[in-house]
Amino acid sequence: MELKEIEIFAPATIANISCGFDVMGCCLDAIGDIMILRKTQEKGIRISKIIGGELPMDPEQNVAGVAIIALLKACEVQPDFGFDIEIHKKIKPGSGIGSSAASAAGAVFAANELLGRPFTKHQLIPFAAEGERAACGSPIADNVAPALLGGFTLVKSTDPIKVIELPSIKGLYATIIHPQIEIKTSLSRDILPQNISLNNAVKQWANVGAFVHALHMNDHELFADSLKDYIVEPHRSKLIPKFNEVIKASVGAGALGGGISGSGPSIFTFSKDIHIAKNVDHAINEVYSKTEIPFYLYTSRINDKGVKILKQQ
Amino acid sequence: MELKEIEIFAPATIANISCGFDVMGCCLDAIGDIMILRKTQEKGIRISKIIGGELPMDPEQNVAGVAIIALLKACEVQPDFGFDIEIHKKIKPGSGIGSSAASAAGAVFAANELLGRPFTKHQLIPFAAEGERAACGSPIADNVAPALLGGFTLVKSTDPIKVIELPSIKGLYATIIHPQIEIKTSLSRDILPQNISLNNAVKQWANVGAFVHALHMNDHELFADSLKDYIVEPHRSKLIPKFNEVIKASVGAGALGGGISGSGPSIFTFSKDIHIAKNVDHAINEVYSKTEIPFYLYTSRINDKGVKILKQQ
Repeated sequence: MELKEIEIFAPATIANISCGFDVMGCCLDAIGDIMILRKTQEKGIRISKIIGGELPMDPEQNVAGVAIIALLKACEVQPDFGFDIEIHKKIKPGSGIGSSAASAAGAVFAANELLGRPFTKHQLIPFAAEGERAACGSPIADNVAPALLGGFTLVKSTDPIKVIELPSIKGLYATIIHPQIEIKTSLSRDILPQNISLNNAVKQWANVGAFVHALHMNDHELFADSLKDYIVEPHRSKLIPKFNEVIKASVGAGALGGGISGSGPSIFTFSKDIHIAKNVDHAINEVYSKTEIPFYLYTSRINDKGVKILKQQ
Repeated sequence: MELKEIEIFAPATIANISCGFDVMGCCLDAIGDIMILRKTQEKGIRISKIIGGELPMDPEQNVAGVAIIALLKACEVQPDFGFDIEIHKKIKPGSGIGSSAASAAGAVFAANELLGRPFTKHQLIPFAAEGERAACGSPIADNVAPALLGGFTLVKSTDPIKVIELPSIKGLYATIIHPQIEIKTSLSRDILPQNISLNNAVKQWANVGAFVHALHMNDHELFADSLKDYIVEPHRSKLIPKFNEVIKASVGAGALGGGISGSGPSIFTFSKDIHIAKNVDHAINEVYSKTEIPFYLYTSRINDKGVKILKQQ
């Protein structure tokens, strides 16, 4: 039976992950958008509904539309149908947990299914990255890759995009706070130095190597010890109220460590299991409840599958 | 029976390994020094013989002596005997394949055996690094770690020294050319920029992560693709005649890739097996035979044990 409609879960993601600025990411499970894609008789792409976010309805302006346009450009034969897209945004735009990446990854995943799966998940990454270009100016892959592939990913190179799937630490949970403040991605970028000391760079890549090794060895201690960022965090953490207090309280409650999710303002922490992750949630809640800043708190296991099909007909 | 004398093989090592500047290293098998350590009635350290190198006989000036002094300082109980050291240098000082590291690592390994093995190999690394301080001004571990532990190693941090043992690509061989030119370590250091672009740093640590993953997955293609150096090689390769030609000829002969060994002038290449490694040896020989520069060429499998005991009584 030919597929007519598909409903998918497009997960939130953590990019950067301390030492892995611009290259590492991981996929979440408890936070994500719902997207419904339907085949239409009329060709072309139409975004018929967006709930939960003020986002462009024009497919050429919307990351989901742009990503599907990129995918269609790569198809040898154009489909004899069009796409209707319905997006239920649960991930707040500007949160730092891959809101635009979820839309882009979800859109190409669902469109690929409706097309009879001409592309592998890895092949979908550059199309989703084109969606990211519409949101942030460059075709970055560090959120769309884990959103599509699940687990931990490493963007080995960007031109061409090459992504490595890393193993996950078993049973790992993330606790994430999203403070309701706006940090423009452009400001997050501008605050970074264009040049860094070779000394700090060496420390950083030692930790990247150690982090990848820790994932392979399922080594919690080394994983925790590698969650360090000598380059980006010292600058960007200034933009996030109570950043140091949140990390300190989280580690005090048993977290393995944490850092800035994406370009912020969300802060991620990792914990060995759900019980510790909930204690960490409680500890972060205590820190942030003392501020005037509204916030969301999420606890999620690492999603090792990426985008998931919820329904299809 | 109490050990009186030990003869060991102290291996040459490749440090830096392209993307892994200052953190990665690996151990060789076909090149190394021979060291004989004997217990003496007279306490203290005496270097009685050095063959094959113009090196200080004063133990406080010689890396082997300095390393053992550091080891003895850490012993709770001082031995009731002294050490006589005989060194047969096969690794030329200033070659870039860990000549001083072999002496330092071999010395602490052998002394530790004569002392009844109070320390693990990992615990010996900081003592050997103290020996390196005598040779190059700082207690670097990226050569002594693979010399002691074997295989591929990652210096995760330097203060305190923490070293990770990485898995090896199975069956891997190295072909190394040592051109007989002198490059002062200080010049090799001075030619490096103190600051680097964040862009290049990101590319570099993406490759470090990919390299560690490739070792775990025994992935030749990814291993080859990660052997890139955006930071150091562009500067240091200028000091090594025919560097680019050697790499090009090696890859043309089937090598997975290569780079500058340590701070040069040696150039290393890696090959999947001994047959390719010998073809690479031949290709490099062709390139360098056209110059006026005398050179040594070595082909060696990766040594996964590190320092080895040859004889003991």
